Amino acid sequence: MSASERTGGDAGADGAGRAFLLTNIGELTTNVSAAGDPCGTLRDAAVLVRAGRVEWTGLTTEVPDAAGLTADARIEVIDAGGRAVIPGFVDSHTHLVFGGDRAEEFAARMEGKRYAAGGIRTTVAATRSAPDDELRKRLRSLVAECRAQGTTTLEIKTGYGLDVETELRLARLAAEVTDEVTFLGAHVVAPEFAGRADEYIDLVVGEMLDAVSPLVRWVDVFCETGAFTAAQSRRVLEAGRAKGLGIRVHGNQLGAGDGVALAVSLDAASVDHCTFVSDADVAALAASDTVATLLPGVEFSTRQPYPDARRLLDAGVTVALASDCNPGSSFTSSMPLMIALAVREMGMTPAEAVWAATAGGARALRRTDVGVIHPGARADLVLLEAPTRVHLAYRPGVPLVRTVWKDGAEV
Amino acid sequence: MSASERTGGDAGADGAGRAFLLTNIGELTTNVSAAGDPCGTLRDAAVLVRAGRVEWTGLTTEVPDAAGLTADARIEVIDAGGRAVIPGFVDSHTHLVFGGDRAEEFAARMEGKRYAAGGIRTTVAATRSAPDDELRKRLRSLVAECRAQGTTTLEIKTGYGLDVETELRLARLAAEVTDEVTFLGAHVVAPEFAGRADEYIDLVVGEMLDAVSPLVRWVDVFCETGAFTAAQSRRVLEAGRAKGLGIRVHGNQLGAGDGVALAVSLDAASVDHCTFVSDADVAALAASDTVATLLPGVEFSTRQPYPDARRLLDAGVTVALASDCNPGSSFTSSMPLMIALAVREMGMTPAEAVWAATAGGARALRRTDVGVIHPGARADLVLLEAPTRVHLAYRPGVPLVRTVWKDGAEV
Repeated sequence: MSASERTGGDAGADGAGRAFLLTNIGELTTNVSAAGDPCGTLRDAAVLVRAGRVEWTGLTTEVPDAAGLTADARIEVIDAGGRAVIPGFVDSHTHLVFGGDRAEEFAARMEGKRYAAGGIRTTVAATRSAPDDELRKRLRSLVAECRAQGTTTLEIKTGYGLDVETELRLARLAAEVTDEVTFLGAHVVAPEFAGRADEYIDLVVGEMLDAVSPLVRWVDVFCETGAFTAAQSRRVLEAGRAKGLGIRVHGNQLGAGDGVALAVSLDAASVDHCTFVSDADVAALAASDTVATLLPGVEFSTRQPYPDARRLLDAGVTVALASDCNPGSSFTSSMPLMIALAVREMGMTPAEAVWAATAGGARALRRTDVGVIHPGARADLVLLEAPTRVHLAYRPGVPLVRTVWKDGAEV
Repeated sequence: MSASERTGGDAGADGAGRAFLLTNIGELTTNVSAAGDPCGTLRDAAVLVRAGRVEWTGLTTEVPDAAGLTADARIEVIDAGGRAVIPGFVDSHTHLVFGGDRAEEFAARMEGKRYAAGGIRTTVAATRSAPDDELRKRLRSLVAECRAQGTTTLEIKTGYGLDVETELRLARLAAEVTDEVTFLGAHVVAPEFAGRADEYIDLVVGEMLDAVSPLVRWVDVFCETGAFTAAQSRRVLEAGRAKGLGIRVHGNQLGAGDGVALAVSLDAASVDHCTFVSDADVAALAASDTVATLLPGVEFSTRQPYPDARRLLDAGVTVALASDCNPGSSFTSSMPLMIALAVREMGMTPAEAVWAATAGGARALRRTDVGVIHPGARADLVLLEAPTRVHLAYRPGVPLVRTVWKDGAEV
């Protein structure tokens, strides 16, 4: 069943009846932390999948009741041929529901024009005028694109509507393809409210939040010069929390700011971007349960300096990598490229980058059932056309994702 | 027919009998230069292919004898759905015949160890000890990987043998999959000749060249500190020329040097890397027929500064982009990533980068039958999952190659 046909959300029961033993795995990244190895690496390993969940992991030589398993015709044996297997990528930050694209703005930027948050309004206009079917078709095409590249869990934000009707439409569409929907009515000030940000926030925390909150898990805000102040951001996040939503923040992307401090003070699950952070921000993150989600596709596509992952990691901050896939500042859905960029540009080791793109994303969504391969976890697995996970950074741009299983079903 | 099954070389007659009309192309990059548009862009265009060659290009509304064509059951009509079509990529610099890989060296480098040319010897040892079948299997797998990403013309170098027998083996294997084979016996000094570079050159220009030259089109040399001096390099290139081979040079990769000047003085088809070039180098290139082939995968994978393509282009130098796919300094075969890096890091516009990866590569191989889409050219075409070629830079890392035709046959 292809991703574009999914209607039941991330928690769907696809493949619930299927059982298989994936064996002869050259390198298995379990993310079940062992001494000195957060990736919990096993060599010459196997994974038993049943009813959409991982039932067992271990060495190929130690498959439980191997004779009985392999004689059971209901259990398919799949030979990984010595290749590497990792958990499916958890892309905890995307904006996949939108109309139009901004290729011309991108080309102009590459000739020297600076990126500014205001470009978001271009997509707002295109999104408002697009019918549901057009938005749905694009969304499902992008989800299929993500799945084919190994992403098995996707967070998707609203935020290109900025009016009650369109934000509700976007939340409904996103909820068709994932359980991890985030309300981002406070993305930028809606054009009708130009110069009246506080009045726009009244709408966001009032009628808009009332309409959207039953459909979403998270509330988010763009706390940045050109978008919303810390006080405005706090109003949005506290209103969302009062509705039972978890908290996420866009912060410290374009310059120093209050986003990280605000996120930590509200026990946000994640604060995203973190390109310009102070020593106090780093210390606050390290002492919190808030993940720093880094989005190097943005810096790649806007020619801005990359965030310093090494500094965050060395301070003890939990780091996630996500794509921020959106038509303005990062129109990539490639988690393998995020890994390669994190290693090339941000001081991460390949192992740290792979962990951040899987287990890190799961932490950023406060999920324990994805981003890991251990008994009870969802059977979201990626078989690489490579002997090790290092190849995701060593072979940048090369499509190394060979097979993807989500909930035990091949994508 | 898949690339891995090819045995007849690049000039094979695959699809010679097939005819099709590719129509409804949203943006066709012909590379037939028009005023202000080196990419020769046509919108709402069509391409007629017959006997492995392009027979006609133009607007969809102007297909010659359209009624007759579309009624001809031997001519398949393929609807591009408004997507973009570009010439197949011409990757004019690769090292695809080798044994082993160097993932561990890569990971160590990313933790701070500097790249040095000497690492090549690691691959030499692995290559010498690998049987032909093992080398052939790896080579064909990599060629298939290139083809799937849109590369339809590939140059492949020897250079991991460094003894007569192995260099000959590598040339034979490369000649199984391409007509563009380059003899790179002077890659580094063979380990047996450590400290005796001139004696090694005696071997290269003598017995080794005699053995290999009937199988190859080009001679190349690594003119760089740690490899060969300008005088040694000149001996190799002149000996190759005396055997009727065309000239290519690796130069100015790791520091300033004599590679560019030497290449221009010998009318080399291309000088590759050009990361550290003087004003005199740039002026010499601009006044020559020698192409500057830039290999940004190397700088990405070795964390070195990128070459300044803008400076070269503004001076009037012809620039090509290639992958340098090799297990040490750039283990990527992704021409789309080279385009994205050229735009992000090297000051090229998307149009310049796409031209450089197609027509530029053809110039670097002194070919007129590839890298362009015009009547008489090989029918090497790439249909993108995107409306414009800009998307190759705008959507970095995303596999946008939808369909590839080589000599009119779908890969």
